[in-house]
Amino acid sequence: MHFHAAIDILPLPGLLDPQGKAVTNNLPNIGLGQLTNVRIGKHITLDIEADTREDAERLVGEACEKLLANPIMERFEFRVFTAEEAAL
Amino acid sequence: MHFHAAIDILPLPGLLDPQGKAVTNNLPNIGLGQLTNVRIGKHITLDIEADTREDAERLVGEACEKLLANPIMERFEFRVFTAEEAAL
Repeated sequence: MHFHAAIDILPLPGLLDPQGKAVTNNLPNIGLGQLTNVRIGKHITLDIEADTREDAERLVGEACEKLLANPIMERFEFRVFTAEEAAL
Repeated sequence: MHFHAAIDILPLPGLLDPQGKAVTNNLPNIGLGQLTNVRIGKHITLDIEADTREDAERLVGEACEKLLANPIMERFEFRVFTAEEAAL
């Protein structure tokens, strides 16, 4: 069966995020000082070939832990869905 | 009123994504060849001070267009929510 995954990876709360800080500091310069506390991570999409949804979720979790996220500095969350569910 | 936003920015469909391609090519080496078509973008969270949800959404859209996303190469989507809604 064919599934899709959408993964969000963000710097752990409390850890410095220099890129987010730089954006936060510059938003007032373009008239957007109402926006604060910017944190920048990664958004990853991918396709999965697996027998069941549980298998698909296990594979995505493994990819996050082994390759996509750095568990020392980042947390991740993801959802797995079929093409039909994506259309809803 | 205080709102939060979660923004996803992804390379436009059809555009090359060298980082995603590199990850896709290496997944089989760690036993995860069932995962394909990896595309890597940005996930951004921020806080918003605005009178209404409509104002908050307008500000986030403006930040995406002016600063966070490159409209030539990327598409973005976001959702705006209150702290109470985030807890649901």
